[in-house]
Amino acid sequence: MHLLCQAQQAESDFRKVILIMTAIISIGNEILLGRTLNTNLQYLATELAALGLEAEYAITIKDDPREIGKALAYCWENYRIVICTGGLGPTDDDITKSSIAEFFSAPLIHDEAVWEHVQNLFSRRNQPTPQTNRNQALVPQGFEVLRNDMGTAPGLHYSDNSKSFFALPGVPLEMQWLFETHIRQRLRGSYNNKPLVVSNMHTWGISESLLAEKLEHFPWPQEIKHAWLPQTGRVDLRLYGSDEQLIENTRKALMEEIGSYVWAIDAQSPAWQLGQLLRSQGLKLAVVESCTGGLLGDMITEVPGASDYFLGGVVSYANRIKEEVLGVPAEIIESLGAVSEETALAMLSGLQKLSRADLAVSITGIAGPDGGSPEKPVGLVCFAFACKDTKYAKTMIFNGSRVSIRFKAAEYAILELIRLLESRSL
Amino acid sequence: MHLLCQAQQAESDFRKVILIMTAIISIGNEILLGRTLNTNLQYLATELAALGLEAEYAITIKDDPREIGKALAYCWENYRIVICTGGLGPTDDDITKSSIAEFFSAPLIHDEAVWEHVQNLFSRRNQPTPQTNRNQALVPQGFEVLRNDMGTAPGLHYSDNSKSFFALPGVPLEMQWLFETHIRQRLRGSYNNKPLVVSNMHTWGISESLLAEKLEHFPWPQEIKHAWLPQTGRVDLRLYGSDEQLIENTRKALMEEIGSYVWAIDAQSPAWQLGQLLRSQGLKLAVVESCTGGLLGDMITEVPGASDYFLGGVVSYANRIKEEVLGVPAEIIESLGAVSEETALAMLSGLQKLSRADLAVSITGIAGPDGGSPEKPVGLVCFAFACKDTKYAKTMIFNGSRVSIRFKAAEYAILELIRLLESRSL
Repeated sequence: MHLLCQAQQAESDFRKVILIMTAIISIGNEILLGRTLNTNLQYLATELAALGLEAEYAITIKDDPREIGKALAYCWENYRIVICTGGLGPTDDDITKSSIAEFFSAPLIHDEAVWEHVQNLFSRRNQPTPQTNRNQALVPQGFEVLRNDMGTAPGLHYSDNSKSFFALPGVPLEMQWLFETHIRQRLRGSYNNKPLVVSNMHTWGISESLLAEKLEHFPWPQEIKHAWLPQTGRVDLRLYGSDEQLIENTRKALMEEIGSYVWAIDAQSPAWQLGQLLRSQGLKLAVVESCTGGLLGDMITEVPGASDYFLGGVVSYANRIKEEVLGVPAEIIESLGAVSEETALAMLSGLQKLSRADLAVSITGIAGPDGGSPEKPVGLVCFAFACKDTKYAKTMIFNGSRVSIRFKAAEYAILELIRLLESRSL
Repeated sequence: MHLLCQAQQAESDFRKVILIMTAIISIGNEILLGRTLNTNLQYLATELAALGLEAEYAITIKDDPREIGKALAYCWENYRIVICTGGLGPTDDDITKSSIAEFFSAPLIHDEAVWEHVQNLFSRRNQPTPQTNRNQALVPQGFEVLRNDMGTAPGLHYSDNSKSFFALPGVPLEMQWLFETHIRQRLRGSYNNKPLVVSNMHTWGISESLLAEKLEHFPWPQEIKHAWLPQTGRVDLRLYGSDEQLIENTRKALMEEIGSYVWAIDAQSPAWQLGQLLRSQGLKLAVVESCTGGLLGDMITEVPGASDYFLGGVVSYANRIKEEVLGVPAEIIESLGAVSEETALAMLSGLQKLSRADLAVSITGIAGPDGGSPEKPVGLVCFAFACKDTKYAKTMIFNGSRVSIRFKAAEYAILELIRLLESRSL
């Protein structure tokens, strides 16, 4: 079991970095039925890591008193901090609170302040308070009530022997508001926790295993832990530890080995990185999209402040829009197809005329599931790029589902624009 | 503990419907650090529910032999089917396989077929096979190897006393391919599982608790379980059971009570429902977006076959695009603002001229975090809609983050278009 020994060593190194372990319990039939994606876990895990309080264990269970009791028993025994989300809504599928009350032997009592808060919320909307909401004013005796300005269900807090238990409603907006308002402050430093320093090196154009091979003999410092994070179509290398300087030195040494594949360090996203470059170079961007239907523009404008550098563009999904709005010659589409480098270049020219952008990109492709042919299979996407006097087309083939092809195509456009701008600034 | 008793009763009813329980183990430090959203759990939970094999328990643990061992022991003892994802990649943070081998007392042996497959994958890309990939050819003795055409790590299957264990790589594309190719067929009917029938009633414009109050005296059949599913800005009511006819009858009775709030039954998404209506009415749609930056077009074109009814449109993020491409008078923007019903209507007119669409919508708003004012706060969004001769503007205020405001605005546009088309077809 050589591998196991190695792993145990790595694990024990890792524990030197992170001291206090936390468990997260997600309650919800809907997660287990696949109907809801558990974004609350990601939010809490991220926030805890930033506080140096890593989530060590996460469990998803049904709205079932027996399961809730078992999960509480296990987590409260094994972890210093336990955070439970979900199952605090007004309707009859919510039984969490009773189970919590039973586990902590704390009878449920009526809290007048919570009841007034619930009634206020409804009267502000000019609605009568439904009687089903009355049970939201029940709280386990001895628990601290965490006021919820975003909804009717309060958060709950119990602490005992330097252990903390929190119960939060499952609606992401309310859960996040409660964490930010009440919990982050309570947890900051209260367990001698040392914030974790994290740095991501974002690579593109090389596989995880080839990267790992290039770093086979890299002298990793013992205090730095690293992990490979496969993204859709690319890989991130993440470093973490508690010593910022050591992380920086390690990153510099890594750049010597794999720097040519690294498109950014600690970028929030490719679109964010593109925005930084556009802003620093004082350039304006426009886009024209066919198969991605607006996704590229969406990614770019998801970044706050995108109006500093993004003009907009055209979604030319139908050929009529390509021809009439962008002036793509009908002959090109007829003879070479709507998905061709020639069409991509003609779309780009039309966009440049309409927008007078410094930087422009066009996308036209076959996202599937239908519309492919032996010569032009599903996943084939043609791009054209223009930056000042440079102008060129590229063709790629992406695999996966419709969603995944569209995503990869939009992200490819962004990464290629980053490459273009980075080569300009050299 | 009256509530607990009720819940136990509901739970026991529920168990009559769903017979075979499954546990899902997700292995990954990155999920627990918040860096990765666990979409694999949602995929597997959905697929299992469709097979009548509900996931009853889901646990997320670190790449730690001790934790993996504990999770395997608990799940293998308590569940008939155990599916484990993650931790089968080529690099050094992957120790899952050794832990599985240890738990099942099955030594790891070299599998030549897997090794050849790995080498083939690399040679097809004209790359040498990294030695780090050699350990991917190790499989626990007595396990069935599930060939992975989408990547290097094979799936693993072990069965014993009518129990099944599956281990799958964590990359979503590979995990899904393996499930579809090898696992779905093996699980279909093999546990006398009866597919679960699920029906969703999608509502809009009413809160969960008011809906629940309207249904307070509704005579729920004992064999039908229901759950409220809060979505961003709206609520779904989900019914499930094993008798399709009974579900249909219940749904009809529910429509009598809350039908006016229901915008669709069993729609895959609002955009999908909009597509169904557009196709059946033979209408073409175009959109012009400012604050949503392409998100509305993205949502609409995520639906396969959207080219049947979606023409495209303009992303007029900068005022210059609004004026020069769409012909919005500069005076309107100067005097009333880029975010105003007048600008929305002028954008719409420009779009109608460019696209000649039957149905058109425009969106302009303040997504934040900056750009708000006392008169026009962050979250204020103006829309204009046109359908043949009907044309009108609407203003809404959405709360939440930039991402959430943009999402709610795009979805509002779609739901309003659905309302428009449904009123036309009455």
